Amino acid sequence: MSKYSIGLDFGTNSVRALIVDVGNGEEIATSVWNYQHGEEGIVLDAREPYLARQHPADYVEGVKACVAQSLQEAASQTDFSARDVIGIGVDTTGSTPLPVDKTGKPLAFHDAFEETPAAMAWLWKDHTAFAEAGEITNRAEQMRPQYLAKCGGTYSSEWFWSKIWHCLRVAPEVHDAAYTWVELADWIPALLSGTTHPSVLKRGICAAGHKAMFHTSWGGYPDEEFLSSLDPKLAEIRRTLPSRAYTVADAAGGLTEEWARKLGLPVGIPVAVGALDAHLGGVGSGIQENALVKIMGTSTCDMMVSPLDKDLPDIPGLCGIVPESILPGFHGLEAGQSAVGDIFNWFVSRIQPGGEKGTHEELAEQAARLRPGESGLLGLDWHNGNRTVLVDQRLTGALMGMTLHTSPAEIYRAWIESTAFGARVIMERFEEYGLKVERVLTCGGISFRSPLTMQIYADVMGRVIEVSRSEQTCALGAAMAGSVVAGKEAGGYTDFTEAVVKMTGIREAKYTPIPRNVAIYSQLYQLYRQLHDVFGTEEYSQNLYHVMKRLLSLRDEVISA
Amino acid sequence: MSKYSIGLDFGTNSVRALIVDVGNGEEIATSVWNYQHGEEGIVLDAREPYLARQHPADYVEGVKACVAQSLQEAASQTDFSARDVIGIGVDTTGSTPLPVDKTGKPLAFHDAFEETPAAMAWLWKDHTAFAEAGEITNRAEQMRPQYLAKCGGTYSSEWFWSKIWHCLRVAPEVHDAAYTWVELADWIPALLSGTTHPSVLKRGICAAGHKAMFHTSWGGYPDEEFLSSLDPKLAEIRRTLPSRAYTVADAAGGLTEEWARKLGLPVGIPVAVGALDAHLGGVGSGIQENALVKIMGTSTCDMMVSPLDKDLPDIPGLCGIVPESILPGFHGLEAGQSAVGDIFNWFVSRIQPGGEKGTHEELAEQAARLRPGESGLLGLDWHNGNRTVLVDQRLTGALMGMTLHTSPAEIYRAWIESTAFGARVIMERFEEYGLKVERVLTCGGISFRSPLTMQIYADVMGRVIEVSRSEQTCALGAAMAGSVVAGKEAGGYTDFTEAVVKMTGIREAKYTPIPRNVAIYSQLYQLYRQLHDVFGTEEYSQNLYHVMKRLLSLRDEVISA
Repeated sequence: MSKYSIGLDFGTNSVRALIVDVGNGEEIATSVWNYQHGEEGIVLDAREPYLARQHPADYVEGVKACVAQSLQEAASQTDFSARDVIGIGVDTTGSTPLPVDKTGKPLAFHDAFEETPAAMAWLWKDHTAFAEAGEITNRAEQMRPQYLAKCGGTYSSEWFWSKIWHCLRVAPEVHDAAYTWVELADWIPALLSGTTHPSVLKRGICAAGHKAMFHTSWGGYPDEEFLSSLDPKLAEIRRTLPSRAYTVADAAGGLTEEWARKLGLPVGIPVAVGALDAHLGGVGSGIQENALVKIMGTSTCDMMVSPLDKDLPDIPGLCGIVPESILPGFHGLEAGQSAVGDIFNWFVSRIQPGGEKGTHEELAEQAARLRPGESGLLGLDWHNGNRTVLVDQRLTGALMGMTLHTSPAEIYRAWIESTAFGARVIMERFEEYGLKVERVLTCGGISFRSPLTMQIYADVMGRVIEVSRSEQTCALGAAMAGSVVAGKEAGGYTDFTEAVVKMTGIREAKYTPIPRNVAIYSQLYQLYRQLHDVFGTEEYSQNLYHVMKRLLSLRDEVISA
Repeated sequence: MSKYSIGLDFGTNSVRALIVDVGNGEEIATSVWNYQHGEEGIVLDAREPYLARQHPADYVEGVKACVAQSLQEAASQTDFSARDVIGIGVDTTGSTPLPVDKTGKPLAFHDAFEETPAAMAWLWKDHTAFAEAGEITNRAEQMRPQYLAKCGGTYSSEWFWSKIWHCLRVAPEVHDAAYTWVELADWIPALLSGTTHPSVLKRGICAAGHKAMFHTSWGGYPDEEFLSSLDPKLAEIRRTLPSRAYTVADAAGGLTEEWARKLGLPVGIPVAVGALDAHLGGVGSGIQENALVKIMGTSTCDMMVSPLDKDLPDIPGLCGIVPESILPGFHGLEAGQSAVGDIFNWFVSRIQPGGEKGTHEELAEQAARLRPGESGLLGLDWHNGNRTVLVDQRLTGALMGMTLHTSPAEIYRAWIESTAFGARVIMERFEEYGLKVERVLTCGGISFRSPLTMQIYADVMGRVIEVSRSEQTCALGAAMAGSVVAGKEAGGYTDFTEAVVKMTGIREAKYTPIPRNVAIYSQLYQLYRQLHDVFGTEEYSQNLYHVMKRLLSLRDEVISA
């Protein structure tokens, strides 16, 4: 008799439920529910272009709707019964904190704040707190450099403390009404297990460690002295936070009677502590030691794990190194590229090149016929800044090597190549600091939709690129957490090592480096690296006279070969 | 009673006749005849992409056809009579040399060579001789550096000796059948005045000086020892060339009876020695001391004159400094940008951005609404290499500052700005070597079709930009030469100084620098100059970390201003 776990994946515009067969990872049903508030689920403000909020009512409605529908779909399969669901896991966007009252109820559920954006959830992509982020970074550099060392040297406007501080400044009435703030990844499991009260709510290490400067080596969240120096009211918030954080192998609690009834699921099945979507995506892709997992979409998230008992230095430029943020027993390491698919989409949708032949499909088809080096182009993939290893939002995209013959498909390919070079920089940074990248596992839309991109990555990175079997690795990872908190006796697993083996898989088609392409790309990568260092760092001076010449001579060599 | 002069302008695809009122420069009639051979008048070879030839029969037919039609058009005006035409002037593309026999007859007029491309005129844009150009440059660096000093340091594949040498190598039967080679600019006046026989044919200083290394300081054409070291047969050609060259104030001879009959013009009216189109375009734009004339089309040609009796150093990077190549009594100085309109056309026609809104008109309209600095973009206008001051074909276009919001119109404007920065580099080079740019006179398609471009040039160069009244300044300049060789008594002029005053003019609308734009552009220009030097020279090393940051902060300043 099969057992099942449900993964709930709270994305930017919608929530998804995925029902997975615990025994083999088969995804037997899935359903998506679009958030109703604002534009495509995001509450905006025309006067504040950086503002992006979500109404928590959408989360509550969303769980009910998409679980119901996925159960219905699963029920159409003869051997499924909701009674065989043994656990639930949750992943969400982040940092997406929401202010709650003393009982753990979101302020946006109070009549007074029902339509107040500051009282809603502050979506990850809300950048209104950029000034506060800068101040936090500066203060930490002076007072607590160790805080920055674990988050790549820069505290982001997307993160927990920046947002709380900005709220305190621009909407003090909201801040004063809030008892504390809760990450969405923590609030959903608490909601389902009846543990939203701040005194019992479990905080996940993933969001706390990567977004809120939580680290056991300094006793959890940042200390009160540091926070007081920013604003005494931040220290007050600090006092509402626990000193312990939990991994996804811990249960937030059991499904309450009320929610069991609403969802049509067994009462008391465990709900795992939540984590950020990318991290559970890494789990759903089968992350393990010496494997780099790349979640490839509009941006990328690059993840590795390293055993807790192995020495691990601080790695400059990484977004975060947090014990057990991805897998229990391992350090979780996170890096990423701020824009990947976003660059291709910008080129196609905003620049609209190539007339009728300007679709992704047409451009990719033409670009696939080009040989590496043939266009003479070289790009810098910094249209949305550079997350790893430069950690600098104030960098921009560049393209060189254009002639009067340069075509849209050549440029399209050059953008793909530039992101692949950026990916290689990240991989090399991991390796420079002692990690080994023996496998590259990919997931996310690009991984199964763009064979051209994947082959270029294989050729540029010089690694076989494997692609996750699942198209929903985040939800799958969440379901895996559900199977682990359910435990062996209930039909789940003792730990993630076992769950990874049983529930994840890769596709047959792998992308293998083509030696002649690797040879050309390693030369182009040297040029990319020089541009990267000259434009992206303060230290590196160079004459670049050779760059355009080398691009042209490489082109000549490739064409005449 | 008005007197008239005819300007004949042999372009790349067609020949134009322009009938001009000598007294006031009024253009009373014009007619264009398209060459018939090959594709749009150019004989191509699918196996040789760099080959571009023209059949001289097109020149002969063309003169007859377009003069006849322009006379007919003029006759429809009551006060015109062909008897009042007092002179003819000629400008042509160049270097466009053609092989001729002992009598001066083009080889392509012999039955044996009628369809042999090597026996036709080698059009300026024929680049088959790139290897020979490289060898000539190298040899001159060793043996005759003074030759290179007058032509910007590099001998081009487009020029006289490169082409003759290439013919000698790839079509020896043509070369052996040729007695000598004649520039098109020299051959047309000789044809009309019956002086094609090599013993009497007058060579113009313009083509000889700018394209064939002719300079009086070393006795005319390059010496035999130098040419022999390349190939002894080049020294043989050298022996067929005269030691003197003529200016456009000299007559090649009088119109023959036969041609007078064919054209319906008075017998014996003087035909001026020919010159290259851009140079007579400078004359037709009213070139004078301290004025920079810019012919702005697919590429630009930048010209100045400096009195012969004033000291003038060699100026590195200029295409040529030739005594009397533009105006008698003055040094002619030529510079240029390899691609200007070509870049805008490439972007619109090849990249095809912006869907339905991607025309020049639409993009210019949107771009005109942008403020300088607002896009955060900065380009290098080297899509076709850099002619002045870097003299380097192996440079390519670049664009930096792109974000996920960058629009087609922003890029369109950035390309215009990049060419304006390139124009400022040329202007500054002239000034660094002692010339004064008190006026900037422009002509050519862009000057009267793109007010946006002209305003940006005014703002970037910090100069009032004046636009020539005539849309046909090359043909007008040729007609002015006709009026000068006709002389005062015949109703023409004693010299060009007088002709310039009477026959040229500028439009009322001028483009005046806008101070706030000048201030922004001078900052962007500093960044452009740094990129220019780091990518375009071997000497200049720099860290460029500030470039993207400065572009973004300028953008922020402009947007919040």
